[in-house]
Amino acid sequence: MENVPLIHHAPDKLANERTFRGKFVEDTLVYRQIFLVGSYQTGSDKTITMEALMNFLQETAIRQGSSIWGSQNDFGETREMKLRKLIWIVTRIQVQVQRYSKRGDEIEVDTWFDTAGKNLTRINWIIRDHYTKEIIAKATSTWAFMNRETRRLSKIPDEVRQELNPFCFNRHAISSEEIDHQKIPKVTDANAETFRYGMAPTWNDIDANQHVNNSKYIRWILESVTREVLENYKLTSMTIEFRRECRHSDVLESLTCSSSTVVGDSNNNRKPDLQYIHLLRLQDSKAELVRAKTEWHLKQKNQ
Amino acid sequence: MENVPLIHHAPDKLANERTFRGKFVEDTLVYRQIFLVGSYQTGSDKTITMEALMNFLQETAIRQGSSIWGSQNDFGETREMKLRKLIWIVTRIQVQVQRYSKRGDEIEVDTWFDTAGKNLTRINWIIRDHYTKEIIAKATSTWAFMNRETRRLSKIPDEVRQELNPFCFNRHAISSEEIDHQKIPKVTDANAETFRYGMAPTWNDIDANQHVNNSKYIRWILESVTREVLENYKLTSMTIEFRRECRHSDVLESLTCSSSTVVGDSNNNRKPDLQYIHLLRLQDSKAELVRAKTEWHLKQKNQ
Repeated sequence: MENVPLIHHAPDKLANERTFRGKFVEDTLVYRQIFLVGSYQTGSDKTITMEALMNFLQETAIRQGSSIWGSQNDFGETREMKLRKLIWIVTRIQVQVQRYSKRGDEIEVDTWFDTAGKNLTRINWIIRDHYTKEIIAKATSTWAFMNRETRRLSKIPDEVRQELNPFCFNRHAISSEEIDHQKIPKVTDANAETFRYGMAPTWNDIDANQHVNNSKYIRWILESVTREVLENYKLTSMTIEFRRECRHSDVLESLTCSSSTVVGDSNNNRKPDLQYIHLLRLQDSKAELVRAKTEWHLKQKNQ
Repeated sequence: MENVPLIHHAPDKLANERTFRGKFVEDTLVYRQIFLVGSYQTGSDKTITMEALMNFLQETAIRQGSSIWGSQNDFGETREMKLRKLIWIVTRIQVQVQRYSKRGDEIEVDTWFDTAGKNLTRINWIIRDHYTKEIIAKATSTWAFMNRETRRLSKIPDEVRQELNPFCFNRHAISSEEIDHQKIPKVTDANAETFRYGMAPTWNDIDANQHVNNSKYIRWILESVTREVLENYKLTSMTIEFRRECRHSDVLESLTCSSSTVVGDSNNNRKPDLQYIHLLRLQDSKAELVRAKTEWHLKQKNQ
C-alpha cells in the first residue's frame, strides 16, 4: 500500500476529519472548503464556468450543514428538518465575480448562515484564491423550506429556527447596499431579443431531491446569450430568482433581452458593458422556472 | 489570515507541490490524484455518475501529462506535441465499475501510459477507495493525435514517441483477455428500440479544444436508455468508440438497442442482466459521433 500525504489537523476540531474535508473557522460560524479546479470545470477560455463555481458554493453549504447536523448522505438538512421531511430550497442567489480561476488553481470557499426575514435563511459565500487570499468572488442567497413529499413551501418551524440560530453570523458577503432585492423584470415573447427553444434536461441533471439541480439552470440561461457575448465578455454578476422545480421530462425555453436599468456598480465600481435579463420557462405551459439578470464586462486581452 | 491544514510531503518529489495536487508513485510511472466526491457529481441515487467518474479519469491523465511536460494550462500535451500543434484524441475507452462512490467519499485514481500499437497510446486507470484501497473501478483507453488546426489525425512523430517511452509501464488496468477490441455494431433506425432526438450541446459543454468534451457524450448516450433501466439497474461496464468531434451548433440523436452478444463476464464474473449498444449521431447529416456498449446489473436493495 502506498503512503499518501497526511494532513496535520488542529487537534481540537479536525481530529476525526478526513483528508480533503472542509473545516470550521471563526468559532464554528464559518465553514471553509478548499477545491482544486479541474479542467472539466473550465470552459472554452480555460477558466472555471459559472456553473462549476455555483457547484462549489452549493457543495460548501451542503457540507457545512452535514458537518453540523448530519450524515454524509444528505443535502445539509438539520435534524428537525429531517423529522419534518423538509428540504432546503434556494429562492434567490446573487454572485459577483472578480476573476475566474484557471485549471489547477486552488480556491477556498467560506460559507455562513445569516437571517433574512421571517421565513428565509441567508447563506453567504466568499471565494478566495487559497494561496494569495485574494477575493475572487462573493455570493449571497436566500433559502426557504419545502416539504419533500407535498412539494409545498413551509414556514420555518420554531425547532428549525432554534437549530439555525447558533450558526447565524451577522456578517454579509455582499454589503447590504449591494444586495439586490429588486424583483427581476419578466422577459416576454414581445421583448425577447434572443432565444433558444427545445432544451431538455438529461437524467444526469437530476439530483437526489428528484428534480433538476439549481446550478444546472445556468447553462440553459446562458444558451440564449449570443456566442459573440459569451466569447468576448466576462460574466461579472449574476442574480437568479428560482420560481419552480423542473423535472427530467420537461422541455425548456430560454429568452434574453438587454436591460437598460443600471442597478449599482457591482464590479469594482466599473459599470458593466452589457446587462441582460433572462427567462427560463417550460415549453408546454410557458410556466416560469427562473428569472435571471446578468452583467458583463468586455474581456481584457490577457483574461 | 486563517491557518489552513498543511500537507506533509515526501521531501523528494512533492516539496514544491500544492496541497491538493496529485503525485507520482512507483518511480514516476504511475500518477495518483485524490478526489473528493461532491454532491454535484452524484445523481438521483446519490452515487457518482458515470460522467463524473469519466471526468476524474480524464483529469488525472491530463494532470499526469502536465506534471511531466507542461504548464498548468494545457491538456497534458508533450513538448514535441505542442511544437507540432498536436492534441490528444481519445479513440476508445472501456470502463468497468464495481461500486459507485457516494458523496463525501474520497477516491484515488492511478493512471499510467502504455503502448497500444504503432500509432496509438494506451492510458490505464485504477480507481480505489482512498481509505480502504478497495478497487472500485478500472478503465483503459486508446489515444491518437490530431493537429489542432487542420483537425486531421496524425501519426505519432518519433520525437513524441521518445518522450512517451520512458513513461510507458507494461501493466494493464484491465487484463488483456478482458480488454474489448471488438468493433461495436452499429445501431440503425431499423434496429433501434429506444431513441431520443433533438439534444443540443450547450456552451458549457465546449472545452479548450473548441469541441464538446468527451465525457459530456455520456449523458446523451444514456438519454436513449429507458428510465426504468436507469433507476433500477447499475451501469457496470461501458465501452465508447469516439468517431467524430461535435460542436456547439450541432444537434444530436441518441439510439439504443439491446444486444444479445455476451462479450465476457466483465463484472465479478457475474453475467450482466442487460446489455445494450448505442449510437450518437448528428441530426442533420446522420454522421456518427460515438458508438457505445453498456452492461447493467439489477441493483441490490442496499445499493
